[in-house]
Amino acid sequence: MKPIDINHLLLLEHDEFCRRIGKVRACMAEMGMKALLVNDNANTYYLTGRVYAGFVYVPLEGEVIFFVKRPVKLTGDGVVYIRKPEEMTETIGLNVPETIGLELDVTPYSAVERLKKLFPQSSLLNASQVLRKARSQKTEVEIDMIRRSGVKHVHVYSRIPHLYTEGMTDMELQVEIEKLSRLEGCLGQFRISGDSMELYMGNVLVGENADSPSPYDFAMGGAGLDPSLPVGANDTEIKPGNTVMVDMNGNFDGYMTDMTRVYALGDIGELAVKAHQCSIDIHRELVGMMKPGAEAKALYARAEEMVKEAGLHEFFMGHCQHAGFIGHGIGIEINELPVIAPRSRDLIAEGNVIALEPKFVIPHVGAVGIENTYAVYADRVECLTPAPEAISYFLI
Amino acid sequence: MKPIDINHLLLLEHDEFCRRIGKVRACMAEMGMKALLVNDNANTYYLTGRVYAGFVYVPLEGEVIFFVKRPVKLTGDGVVYIRKPEEMTETIGLNVPETIGLELDVTPYSAVERLKKLFPQSSLLNASQVLRKARSQKTEVEIDMIRRSGVKHVHVYSRIPHLYTEGMTDMELQVEIEKLSRLEGCLGQFRISGDSMELYMGNVLVGENADSPSPYDFAMGGAGLDPSLPVGANDTEIKPGNTVMVDMNGNFDGYMTDMTRVYALGDIGELAVKAHQCSIDIHRELVGMMKPGAEAKALYARAEEMVKEAGLHEFFMGHCQHAGFIGHGIGIEINELPVIAPRSRDLIAEGNVIALEPKFVIPHVGAVGIENTYAVYADRVECLTPAPEAISYFLI
Repeated sequence: MKPIDINHLLLLEHDEFCRRIGKVRACMAEMGMKALLVNDNANTYYLTGRVYAGFVYVPLEGEVIFFVKRPVKLTGDGVVYIRKPEEMTETIGLNVPETIGLELDVTPYSAVERLKKLFPQSSLLNASQVLRKARSQKTEVEIDMIRRSGVKHVHVYSRIPHLYTEGMTDMELQVEIEKLSRLEGCLGQFRISGDSMELYMGNVLVGENADSPSPYDFAMGGAGLDPSLPVGANDTEIKPGNTVMVDMNGNFDGYMTDMTRVYALGDIGELAVKAHQCSIDIHRELVGMMKPGAEAKALYARAEEMVKEAGLHEFFMGHCQHAGFIGHGIGIEINELPVIAPRSRDLIAEGNVIALEPKFVIPHVGAVGIENTYAVYADRVECLTPAPEAISYFLI
Repeated sequence: MKPIDINHLLLLEHDEFCRRIGKVRACMAEMGMKALLVNDNANTYYLTGRVYAGFVYVPLEGEVIFFVKRPVKLTGDGVVYIRKPEEMTETIGLNVPETIGLELDVTPYSAVERLKKLFPQSSLLNASQVLRKARSQKTEVEIDMIRRSGVKHVHVYSRIPHLYTEGMTDMELQVEIEKLSRLEGCLGQFRISGDSMELYMGNVLVGENADSPSPYDFAMGGAGLDPSLPVGANDTEIKPGNTVMVDMNGNFDGYMTDMTRVYALGDIGELAVKAHQCSIDIHRELVGMMKPGAEAKALYARAEEMVKEAGLHEFFMGHCQHAGFIGHGIGIEINELPVIAPRSRDLIAEGNVIALEPKFVIPHVGAVGIENTYAVYADRVECLTPAPEAISYFLI
């Protein structure tokens, strides 16, 4: 491998850059989008391999332009420094596109209004849809980065049974896992598209707290420590008979894995064990259905059917409050396509990376079930979080 | 104190709620805004004392309505459950406001377009400006929450000199501080208005890394561990002669303090010591100028003047890349009003809480200078991060 020149704006290898731009342009062509302008950190990272402040201008044909505000001193073909967005027009003004794509699902209204003025003759289209679709089918390079996060994620989880000490609370355990993860290289940042979901480094849910409804659209809730961030651990002591569900951050290189495992101090009762096994069974079944072209909603329906057959419906995806999905695409952000939900219109496609999380909340016991991240290929599915799936017992 | 009913939507005491709504309505009246709709987590938290998924509808006159999507089972006067925004119109439809304020600076374009359709006869105004202004003048209750974060923040920092062990890197030290903070109750979440700035739990900058330019609009940069999150610690070993600047998260209850201190292993040279003292001197001077009615830009100008007099201009607020401000309002979010910058039009006002951070980057040594959070009253200024300001030396 040649050494990376960190001052060169484009950190992606040329071939990889071409593959990604190719995907984006194919989606643009489909929507009749003649040019698009990317500003969002996640999309900038996708197109260049780095986060910078500025824009990426992608015409359907012709050269890509990288408009940079910060940091100083980046070099490379197509790099143009600007202080404000209005300066972009001087560079791209000669070829006004008929239609311009802006990231309408993530860029604030005021910012879009300002950018629209740069393209007074262009019709506005939604570039968020283009990027979301392009990013849902990962390249080999992207899957490899997710795989590398997975290796570290699994390594951290393998040490969780050793972290428990008597009398520990959910938060004390979480802090130990955070430390372990961070020393392993975890970046911590949870990228979530849209800023209405907030989460700090993940969730450790113990006992009844798993049934606390959360304002966020996450599969599991938790009351949290404070009404300003009402999610996750809430200082519950870990006690025999309760489960400890660990769903912690797997972002080690900008591309994430999502992974959940369950731990306990002792016997958790038949119902919880049965539900945990049902989750594992659903994984096996749905992995078999994850073929390019399959309907995402069919996966959800099959999971629901299995849950009903097992008589576990009232506990599925929460008890007091139910989550509306059992899986989601993952990569740079935690809420990518496809969505595995009852009314999802997504089709499974080659290159999808999907976190599957059929979970249950058993009253008075806690949450059970596992989450794995899978890569979908033409002829097979790869688990990117290969770790033992049974409930682990803390070593004391 | 009476026990809190966590199922009651409004966690704020009635008087405090009235004070905040009163401030918001005063700003609305000034802008001719007849009603506004809040959806952003930070603004929802400000108006109710909790984060929930949904909206707060604030008419200039009449009852406030709390539209809740999640969590389930919240109760209280004015609570109306909705599944989608369109259902709000049934409740508020009878009194169509002439003008409606939406959070245009933070709500994505698509979401605003959807909300606008609920008010087809209303002119659109920017509620972000109203909330930003109202929130910039804190109530006593808010300042008390910031003060309590400050006490814990100071306590964590007091133990930093004991955390160092020989051969430690910036990241290893940061992980120890993170653990200490978390066990002290730090929520971790850095709320930053707009989602283009990303930061995980703060910055520990050692030596030359302080001079690495960042894409984010922070006072200090750092290369970070990965191009997907290029800010902060980058695995630099802490060595004699270098400074260690610690600027870590102070969010212990939804309201934050911002605080920076400098540590070192041994002699860091005259220039760095002089610059650190200059930062302390600027604090003294600017605190004396922080009177209601003072121009924010005058504070910046005075700091710049002192820096020039000391012959330290080339190192001020960065060396390779310079930040454009030396202070900012802080509270629920880290980038509130007022902004202490050369072209700021903000005036200092009673109730402002301001983080002041005149800093320097000394080549080959690192960053020096301190940051404190101050509350501005009619007749005095209170430091909410009262901790020793001199450079501390690690205990080995």
